Amino acid sequence: MKEKILSLIEAGKYFEARNEISKLNVVDAAQLFEDIDHVHVLIVFRILPKDFSSEVFSYMSSDLQKSVIDSMTDEEAVRIFDDLYFDDAVDFLEEMPANVVKRILKNSDDNTRTLINQFLKYPADSAGSLMTIEYVDLKKEMTVRQAIDYIKKIGIDKRTINTCYVMNESRILEGRISIRKLILNDEAAIIADIMETDVISVNTLDDQEDVAALFKKYDYYIVPVVDTENRLVGIITVDDILDVIDQEATEDFQKMAATKPSDTEYLKTSNWGLAKNRIPWLLVLMISATLTGGIIQRYEHALQSVIILAAFIPMLMDTGGNSGSQSSSLVIRGLALGEIKTTDILKVIWKEFSVGSIAGSILAAVNFVRIMIFENTSMEVAFTVSLTMFLVVVIAKVVGGILPIAAQKLKLDPAVMAGPLITTIVDAAALMIYFSLATLLLGI
Amino acid sequence: MKEKILSLIEAGKYFEARNEISKLNVVDAAQLFEDIDHVHVLIVFRILPKDFSSEVFSYMSSDLQKSVIDSMTDEEAVRIFDDLYFDDAVDFLEEMPANVVKRILKNSDDNTRTLINQFLKYPADSAGSLMTIEYVDLKKEMTVRQAIDYIKKIGIDKRTINTCYVMNESRILEGRISIRKLILNDEAAIIADIMETDVISVNTLDDQEDVAALFKKYDYYIVPVVDTENRLVGIITVDDILDVIDQEATEDFQKMAATKPSDTEYLKTSNWGLAKNRIPWLLVLMISATLTGGIIQRYEHALQSVIILAAFIPMLMDTGGNSGSQSSSLVIRGLALGEIKTTDILKVIWKEFSVGSIAGSILAAVNFVRIMIFENTSMEVAFTVSLTMFLVVVIAKVVGGILPIAAQKLKLDPAVMAGPLITTIVDAAALMIYFSLATLLLGI
Repeated sequence: MKEKILSLIEAGKYFEARNEISKLNVVDAAQLFEDIDHVHVLIVFRILPKDFSSEVFSYMSSDLQKSVIDSMTDEEAVRIFDDLYFDDAVDFLEEMPANVVKRILKNSDDNTRTLINQFLKYPADSAGSLMTIEYVDLKKEMTVRQAIDYIKKIGIDKRTINTCYVMNESRILEGRISIRKLILNDEAAIIADIMETDVISVNTLDDQEDVAALFKKYDYYIVPVVDTENRLVGIITVDDILDVIDQEATEDFQKMAATKPSDTEYLKTSNWGLAKNRIPWLLVLMISATLTGGIIQRYEHALQSVIILAAFIPMLMDTGGNSGSQSSSLVIRGLALGEIKTTDILKVIWKEFSVGSIAGSILAAVNFVRIMIFENTSMEVAFTVSLTMFLVVVIAKVVGGILPIAAQKLKLDPAVMAGPLITTIVDAAALMIYFSLATLLLGI
Repeated sequence: MKEKILSLIEAGKYFEARNEISKLNVVDAAQLFEDIDHVHVLIVFRILPKDFSSEVFSYMSSDLQKSVIDSMTDEEAVRIFDDLYFDDAVDFLEEMPANVVKRILKNSDDNTRTLINQFLKYPADSAGSLMTIEYVDLKKEMTVRQAIDYIKKIGIDKRTINTCYVMNESRILEGRISIRKLILNDEAAIIADIMETDVISVNTLDDQEDVAALFKKYDYYIVPVVDTENRLVGIITVDDILDVIDQEATEDFQKMAATKPSDTEYLKTSNWGLAKNRIPWLLVLMISATLTGGIIQRYEHALQSVIILAAFIPMLMDTGGNSGSQSSSLVIRGLALGEIKTTDILKVIWKEFSVGSIAGSILAAVNFVRIMIFENTSMEVAFTVSLTMFLVVVIAKVVGGILPIAAQKLKLDPAVMAGPLITTIVDAAALMIYFSLATLLLGI
């Protein structure tokens, strides 16, 4: 199908191509446009059915949007822009260079311009930046029949009619009613009698992560957004929340890998951009790791007399780091999903202590046997290494459990307390224990 | 509010409590029940309005559901069960012990029993396990008026009426139509003329991750599920997809921390369960890390003659591990979100090589200066350590970029190629480079 359309376009059979494209889902059509040769894009786009083309436009990548808008007349550009849902329009402007924004806003009416400027001011991760204004507003005196007639009149331009909102004259949110309820109720019923009044709403400045949590908790598809005076200003739809959930998880993945979080896709980030996000933490951790070097230097005499001790350092450090990462990852994720609260800290410590004891014993035992069989060394050394292993695993697990919760309690981001930082901390502990035990048990 | 209701219950004022609870959102009411003293739970639950109580039941934790069902008569239990939406009913049965399942199914009619047994057989992560059967089915000959009248009649028991599906006599899916379109169209219009025919559906056995990707791509709220003969068997709603997205991300977090993935919440997993999920990978990685020990042993003479070399091992290993983790985490996440394809491998290698060169140069330079200022050692040693640092960072980044993509290409899970495994591999490389350079540059 895609190949067929592309070859129709190459052959200059634009109208045939247009007919095929119009049969596609708008998302697929937008994706197709990414593959159309630059010289044909605007010609094909221009002859698409009007409503269809605006929808396709809203699903294009910002690069393609920009190149389409760049080659359009002002009237065309404004027509497309006016047809976009408000949130798509704002998202679009946010991605465009200043000259395009200027060009569009210059040709918009005053109301739109004011509203857009207001929306552009909402912080990037706030409810305000996710919302759109095309909701259905009802009055509580209306009958179901009147409400449905009203929806028939205005519904075509609304983002959704599935949930409608009831406001008073000051735009204060008074209730909500689903289209389902409207349809299933008697036509003479009064909205005030059948609407739900315990409407859960969010504030424009609420964090998008909290908004997503609300959607998950109540299984909502749409949530109303109010300002500080409880006036309805917009709605957030669940399709945007899907992206928020992915985005928040990605942010945690990045932080847990000691990278500065970024919204830009990997392949679309410049090499300098990637390097800039990664170097600060690498530097901090590198400098911190010199602490571990200091410990080794302090015990140089021990190392020099029993040089085989050096051979076990990487294994002890790695296993400690891995044990701690396992715990911290699970706790960080639990905190992010709200499954673990900071008040659970004692439970977590006890759990990690128990799990650490179990895992530590098994690892130590396997390690002891392995050294006795495969390494040409004394039982005392094997015992020293294995006892260190046990203690390191227990400590790593407990530290990995505590630090994310402590961070949360201090209003820091728990995700930073992940593998890399835990490893650096546990490494130092591992070496201290190792050399102390060696001095003690091996008499050096 | 919550405290007020709880104290009403404690005081035995059940009916007053009931009136307050009925005003709550069902999700909040279900959460309240978790805090009600065991002896009062069933009394309060029994006097709730019938429809409300089934909804509240569906949002309770499985522990609470079990204790409620356990103390009910068979008739009461079956009444609640029959009132549940089909997917909630199946989820409920999946969590119940065999005797409860038996008790419920014994009292259900044949049809329900057959259907439930069929649903219980769908694999845990399949589209079949997410779907429910309460959709609205229309016929293409219907007029809009007839369709709406039909929805008025059957809509009350449906999970959603927002999207309706059109099937032929063999239940083959022919089209879909939104309630919005029904309302905005003329009452005399024929469904066949206004329905959408390019219906994107999933198969019962499709993986839930692919289903979630479809919801994200097309901004759908509802997706139909068909069997191998393209017959409509159910629908999946977006609220379940929110959980799937969280679940899939959690699985990746677990795998990337070298833990066996598990659906059970951290605090609800037994210590043995947690240990069992963590020990296998710790063992594998511990054994692999002995390779690194072998390398140190091979260069024992070098270490013995320049013992200060040992002090830099932890820093080199940690920085290598961190550099590799950064790259692998970003690439793994990119693959999971479909932002990176396996065909992008050359782009990724080049990107990681470039980023590694930038980061490596800076880290090496900082490291060189730091050693010259703070450590009491020769410039040759400082140079050896810094050159190793540069090479290790570059190699770690390239390896961290390649391995997840290679895993994906080999149909293995990329998430396994994360920090812990990368660290083990990079450690060995780091030590080989370090000692080779030391032998070469320091003439030992």
